[in-house]
Amino acid sequence: MASCPQPSKETSIIGSDGNLYNYNRQSPLIFIGGVPRSGTTLMRAMLDAHPDVRCGEETRVVPRLLQMRSHWMKSQKESLRLQEAGLTGDVLDSAISSFILEVVAKHAEPAKRLCNKDPFTLKSGAYLKQLFPNGKFLFMIRDGRASVHSIITRKVTITGFDLKSYRQCLQKWNTAITAMNEQCKELGPDHCLPVYYEQLVLHPEKWLRKILKFLDLPWNDAVLHHEQQINKKGGVSLSKVERSSDQVIKPINLDALSKWVGHIPQDVLDDMADVAPMLAHFGYDPAGNPPNYGKPDQFVIDNTHDIQEHDDEWEEIADRVKKLSKKDTMPRAGNKDSINDFDQ
Amino acid sequence: MASCPQPSKETSIIGSDGNLYNYNRQSPLIFIGGVPRSGTTLMRAMLDAHPDVRCGEETRVVPRLLQMRSHWMKSQKESLRLQEAGLTGDVLDSAISSFILEVVAKHAEPAKRLCNKDPFTLKSGAYLKQLFPNGKFLFMIRDGRASVHSIITRKVTITGFDLKSYRQCLQKWNTAITAMNEQCKELGPDHCLPVYYEQLVLHPEKWLRKILKFLDLPWNDAVLHHEQQINKKGGVSLSKVERSSDQVIKPINLDALSKWVGHIPQDVLDDMADVAPMLAHFGYDPAGNPPNYGKPDQFVIDNTHDIQEHDDEWEEIADRVKKLSKKDTMPRAGNKDSINDFDQ
Repeated sequence: MASCPQPSKETSIIGSDGNLYNYNRQSPLIFIGGVPRSGTTLMRAMLDAHPDVRCGEETRVVPRLLQMRSHWMKSQKESLRLQEAGLTGDVLDSAISSFILEVVAKHAEPAKRLCNKDPFTLKSGAYLKQLFPNGKFLFMIRDGRASVHSIITRKVTITGFDLKSYRQCLQKWNTAITAMNEQCKELGPDHCLPVYYEQLVLHPEKWLRKILKFLDLPWNDAVLHHEQQINKKGGVSLSKVERSSDQVIKPINLDALSKWVGHIPQDVLDDMADVAPMLAHFGYDPAGNPPNYGKPDQFVIDNTHDIQEHDDEWEEIADRVKKLSKKDTMPRAGNKDSINDFDQ
Repeated sequence: MASCPQPSKETSIIGSDGNLYNYNRQSPLIFIGGVPRSGTTLMRAMLDAHPDVRCGEETRVVPRLLQMRSHWMKSQKESLRLQEAGLTGDVLDSAISSFILEVVAKHAEPAKRLCNKDPFTLKSGAYLKQLFPNGKFLFMIRDGRASVHSIITRKVTITGFDLKSYRQCLQKWNTAITAMNEQCKELGPDHCLPVYYEQLVLHPEKWLRKILKFLDLPWNDAVLHHEQQINKKGGVSLSKVERSSDQVIKPINLDALSKWVGHIPQDVLDDMADVAPMLAHFGYDPAGNPPNYGKPDQFVIDNTHDIQEHDDEWEEIADRVKKLSKKDTMPRAGNKDSINDFDQ
């Protein structure tokens, strides 16, 4: 074991702006979490549009390392073995935080504030705060019926989710969001802010002001126009293989709110309050099809009309964005390629 | 992506000797690998007895992270996703090497030369050399019949090994050692030295001289008497939950060489050359029961006699060592605790 407490390790990067950026475990990292298809990509795109923040694409590897550790910790046999091998909490924390900092800092351009959006990291929220005591967490909450409809229709594979069953997916949604809600409560209001996707979309300015204040960031109008920063330097970098990329190229709009209505089997609708009790917990009426999410700001209504009128142009932009992607080969996954979009 | 090449990150530790130790990706780390139960613990105990080297217990987490990466790399879909997310080879290499350095450096006392003994890391030998270009690898080779007998009788759980079948375990031994042999060849003779367990035990001085020379370490008599350094400061730290701990407390001896004889089912013996073709590849006579491993040095014969005459005393020492262990709780693993001794 190390005999003296160690100084916090630094990760240093020289940005394309010529500035030197330093990060360590005291850095106020931002973590965006939530069940997949709950607006986490929109949230990170809005923050990416802020000149001080860089989120970037899902890293995919951060939640896996956290999950691996959580698996070790749940096994008493394994915990003991690690203890006996000198892998005490401090040593593991130091190694895991080094890994996360390297990945988060280096997978895209540096910025004053680094942000990570891998939806399931929030399940390790309390542990992440132990690694990064100044970390701030945004917990994206969305009507589970909409999230599940999107998961199923867009074929978003998630470990443990059976894409053939609305009922099972809604149950899994309920389990996942319960775990995240517990973590958010444990983090407390100074470190975790619940953000309702519907409210963010209906009232962007009000919510973004609240969010930036929570993150100790100055207000900047750019966050209301993330679509103008797509794939620009210092803006919103998109992956052509993330499922939300074709949506966040558009300005904030209402199109996704109630798409799920009419697609959920009647027997599941009938049992909704029991299948997904967290709906009511978060204030969504389990009997509403759709529930009344509220009245949108004029700005969002205008965006939505504009998008509907210029459908073809948006399609073209989406195509262009896909061509801008960093790599040209298409996925050629064989049958044995069992890797999901998301691991829980 | 980082815009400029980054300097190699340092891991710094102040030892209990008051000295500051710095490690980075250029450090000449030593990696000991091989199929479990092939003398990897003896090898690391001998090196731990050297004043300049510290290996320490198996970290268990290093091979798991390497395995996780290897899994990603094998999936074209996942590789593409990581590329698109900015997790290029460099970024992953930097994160994984940071993790490994932190774990290897901090899980035990620092020393001039750090060494890692997690048997299966050798399966990622070529990749480890990419992370640590000055790394040196010791490939422990042992008669597979002896390794498998030891795995089965000591109930050493290894992912993929069926402890109820000598035949299946010997096949798995053959597969694992083939993969390691490929890695060792790819590393080349400047970076990987094959060490035959039987020869190390029969002729310790000759082989240890060869090994220290390969590792660029000065000769030191202490390596011939690792048993005198058990759990001493700067010596050989043992885990009470590693299966070899009760063996390496003893001086180098011949007891383990032919224990397997008489325990392997006749039908497996009859097919040995086909079940485990790597036996013959490494010069072990598949029809010999036992083969002639050679004539031991007098020093080892003396040790072996001494151990046999003072059996009770050695038992006592083993007990004492177990009590010296760092943690007092016993494993209380429930039925669901499916973590193995080793993951391949």
